[in-house]
Amino acid sequence: MANPTFISGEITRAKEKEITSAEDCLAVEEPLEIRLANTPIAVTMRTPGHDQELAAGFLFTEGIVRKYEDIATISGPSRDLPNIVSIKLKPGVRFDRNRLKRHFYTTSSCGVCGKTTLQAIRVKTEPISSGLTIPLSLLYSLPERLREEQETFEETGGLHASAVFDVGGNLLYLREDVGRHNALDKVVGAALLDGKIPLDRHALMVSGRTSFEIMQKALVARIPIVAAVSAPSSLAVALAREFKMTLVGFLRGRKCNIYAGRERIVSDSLDEK
Amino acid sequence: MANPTFISGEITRAKEKEITSAEDCLAVEEPLEIRLANTPIAVTMRTPGHDQELAAGFLFTEGIVRKYEDIATISGPSRDLPNIVSIKLKPGVRFDRNRLKRHFYTTSSCGVCGKTTLQAIRVKTEPISSGLTIPLSLLYSLPERLREEQETFEETGGLHASAVFDVGGNLLYLREDVGRHNALDKVVGAALLDGKIPLDRHALMVSGRTSFEIMQKALVARIPIVAAVSAPSSLAVALAREFKMTLVGFLRGRKCNIYAGRERIVSDSLDEK
Repeated sequence: MANPTFISGEITRAKEKEITSAEDCLAVEEPLEIRLANTPIAVTMRTPGHDQELAAGFLFTEGIVRKYEDIATISGPSRDLPNIVSIKLKPGVRFDRNRLKRHFYTTSSCGVCGKTTLQAIRVKTEPISSGLTIPLSLLYSLPERLREEQETFEETGGLHASAVFDVGGNLLYLREDVGRHNALDKVVGAALLDGKIPLDRHALMVSGRTSFEIMQKALVARIPIVAAVSAPSSLAVALAREFKMTLVGFLRGRKCNIYAGRERIVSDSLDEK
Repeated sequence: MANPTFISGEITRAKEKEITSAEDCLAVEEPLEIRLANTPIAVTMRTPGHDQELAAGFLFTEGIVRKYEDIATISGPSRDLPNIVSIKLKPGVRFDRNRLKRHFYTTSSCGVCGKTTLQAIRVKTEPISSGLTIPLSLLYSLPERLREEQETFEETGGLHASAVFDVGGNLLYLREDVGRHNALDKVVGAALLDGKIPLDRHALMVSGRTSFEIMQKALVARIPIVAAVSAPSSLAVALAREFKMTLVGFLRGRKCNIYAGRERIVSDSLDEK
């Protein structure tokens, strides 16, 4: 791998009045340039690792690439170019060129950059009809499962995580990144490259908050249940309700808030688990 | 104000096996379109409130507007157009039109969208030479000061905060947002509109992590000391060291990590405070 996920180095530590030198490790943040048909179309600040999944997941959740079969090759990063991934599509495959001709941009973690009107923000897609249900006992276990797997998080405290579980509670993918949207794109990209899209029998667990964009990306991957350790935004809840997704927040210990899609949550006997 | 900062509504709450209805409140996330000289140049997902400061701060920290005196008028949001702020420059004032002709974009919270090469990410500016120092006792008090002021955070748990303090420990500005970059742009925008840029005798305290972009924005505002409750990324540390900024992380209780610019931190008698 061209770039490490974290690096260690000397820092200074203060405790009470004492100031001392110490070793510490940092989550790596580096730009990744994503190229489509030889044209640079995005630069995202990411933690190196799973870069091809990130690039594929990004193009898919942003609606530029429609399905895995459209991708001819994915190349990079290389030793010489550690921050570039290049995707080529199969001959004859069209993509929405207008999505590349954007004159807008944004700093917020939103992914709506470049939409020409506010009205265009909502994605054009069908509500999720999946009749999937999840027992409370399984839901309550997800944060602990996520933490157990998040070894890097323990090291630096600086990474967001996204994980996809199946209905049996089995972990399919866990990815981490300094950007929470990248962590989700890596997970969705991994599923895309494995031919597992749509993820309509799965639940997504994220380490932080849920925003409009997190929900939009989950929707494109057709994930019916999204659970988070922290709060959703108003627009995340609005999107979940509009597209019949289940959205859980403040999932900590044996409690949570259910903001949308309560019908997918089943109260089971917690003691038997 | 056209839009509220948070909204309340009915949700479902699960605790152990019990599932009940409850009232809850959510941090509002809505798109803000920023227009410069009648041209839409950015859409950012933000929490409504202080929108003019956000727009001005964004244009300033992104290097599009160079100084307050260049701004002729700031208008919006209005009742009819609650998500648009429009800025006009004085006659003859030039801005970098290339910054508006970007064909790149990004989903991560990075703000480097549209730079045409990876090399262009680093901003062109001088290191910060401010000889400002901060006593440890004052530094340790900042997170508590931030929390005390963050009333909205107590309500929803869903907002990032940025605050600027002077060397006497006096709070100048505190702003909150679902996007941490927006919270910082609001703070810098407030200072810009008050004629208080450069903030070279001030410290910035942020509620979350520090990324490359947070440091870049602080650098443009010439803030010598940046302190955060959580971890910095590798690139945040690299930028701080390159531009002689002081960067503190994991500032909790009476301890912290100092990643750069240790010479601005003075160990004082904590007991006297």
